Amino acid sequence: MAENGTVEEFLAIAVDAAKRAGEIIRKGFYQTKHVEHKGQVDLVTETDKACEDLIFNHLKQKLPNHKFIGEETTAAFGVTELTDEPTWIVDPLDGTTNFVHGFPFVCVSIGLTIGKVPTVGVVYNPIMDELFTGVHGKGAFLNGNPIKVSSQSELVKSLLSTEAGTKRDKATLDATTNRINSLLYKVRSIRMSGSCALNLCGIACGRLDLFYELGFGGPWDVAGGVVIVKEAGGVVFDPSGKEFDITSQRVAASNPLLKDAFIEALQQSE
Amino acid sequence: MAENGTVEEFLAIAVDAAKRAGEIIRKGFYQTKHVEHKGQVDLVTETDKACEDLIFNHLKQKLPNHKFIGEETTAAFGVTELTDEPTWIVDPLDGTTNFVHGFPFVCVSIGLTIGKVPTVGVVYNPIMDELFTGVHGKGAFLNGNPIKVSSQSELVKSLLSTEAGTKRDKATLDATTNRINSLLYKVRSIRMSGSCALNLCGIACGRLDLFYELGFGGPWDVAGGVVIVKEAGGVVFDPSGKEFDITSQRVAASNPLLKDAFIEALQQSE
Repeated sequence: MAENGTVEEFLAIAVDAAKRAGEIIRKGFYQTKHVEHKGQVDLVTETDKACEDLIFNHLKQKLPNHKFIGEETTAAFGVTELTDEPTWIVDPLDGTTNFVHGFPFVCVSIGLTIGKVPTVGVVYNPIMDELFTGVHGKGAFLNGNPIKVSSQSELVKSLLSTEAGTKRDKATLDATTNRINSLLYKVRSIRMSGSCALNLCGIACGRLDLFYELGFGGPWDVAGGVVIVKEAGGVVFDPSGKEFDITSQRVAASNPLLKDAFIEALQQSE
Repeated sequence: MAENGTVEEFLAIAVDAAKRAGEIIRKGFYQTKHVEHKGQVDLVTETDKACEDLIFNHLKQKLPNHKFIGEETTAAFGVTELTDEPTWIVDPLDGTTNFVHGFPFVCVSIGLTIGKVPTVGVVYNPIMDELFTGVHGKGAFLNGNPIKVSSQSELVKSLLSTEAGTKRDKATLDATTNRINSLLYKVRSIRMSGSCALNLCGIACGRLDLFYELGFGGPWDVAGGVVIVKEAGGVVFDPSGKEFDITSQRVAASNPLLKDAFIEALQQSE
């Protein structure tokens, strides 16, 4: 086992950090927000920064030998390479656009990789008070109750989720809407709710059947959610069908029954 | 004032009906559902039918001289003409696809028109326990607290919502995704959460800045929400810019500051 404790202890520490950060998010959600811009769409708020500080300070105090990768530190200091060391990958506020607008899909996402394997996942939506957790080999839970992926086996009865992303160049936007057009012929309907981590948790608890996103911010958007999906009986893969790479900014997830048909539909949508 | 009481009394009766129906929805939401199909995508559940029976029985008992239009009765007996009589227009379960999949945007929608003017609106999401109400000339509320539309005045900072609808013919689907493509160049981002009535309430409470939908089921999807939007300071109009027609299956809504730019963007997206 990794230094400093067991994975159960790491989970408890991460849940504690997520709940404390969630309290900051909940307060900010109902207040007027002061917003900075990075790029045309991507927003960073004071809350985002306060949450990252809180989470990193909490984790570093308890686990001083672990490594840390976060959206804000990466934006400021460049990408930190993922090593085999126990590494916490944190998005202190996933769904910042929702946060700014008051749309209730916002969350804290905390993931721990050990030997580059996503091992602990915590995703907490403080507005809906939904805490999703997963530990490699030990199951996935929503507010302490076991969760599993849907049992849907037909694309035509499946609920698909994705996001429009933040890029607004013509090539990206045309590819995005052409892909949606192609997929809409094959699935029941589509949802876009603005949080990559919560979309993964939606797959894990069976609210959603299919999810893909291309070009999201970084590994912090998925590090927590992928553990939860896998432990709920789901599969996480590259939209091309290749193996999932946490650093690739590309992800797809579903239950195992839908995987092959979903990959085929994604390939035909290119 | 209309027969049988004041609008405040009508509101209280509608809230009572919505809460009782919401209890049925909440129970069903967490259970296995038995689903019938009408068309490829549109779903009707036992819960939908039980809620419509409950709401209509409740309203008819209290207000025997009023008229009633509901999704299920219309599907069974054909369209009921909207007259000047006090008429309750009810969607017992808006967001049936969400209901079937367990995605938490589902609601009861109840609207009352008097002289064809939407006069009372009640939209209740029993999963998130959010009750939106509005009475013509008397304001809009979320769980009893006054709400108002966003103060956003720039499209590029606005959060847009729409739906993919249920039609899967090529002309409709291409028009749908071409419209989204065109609009995504102009707005911050897009949300699709699967409930027309809750999208209207999202406009009313400022979570969303822009909403349009073409080709939804019928007046029951909008009869409650349009009162709430207007009483929250918002505007409801036809996506072409013409006056809103509750029977047209076309709706757009925003705050007044965004209306002209939104209509122009919608026209350019055709």
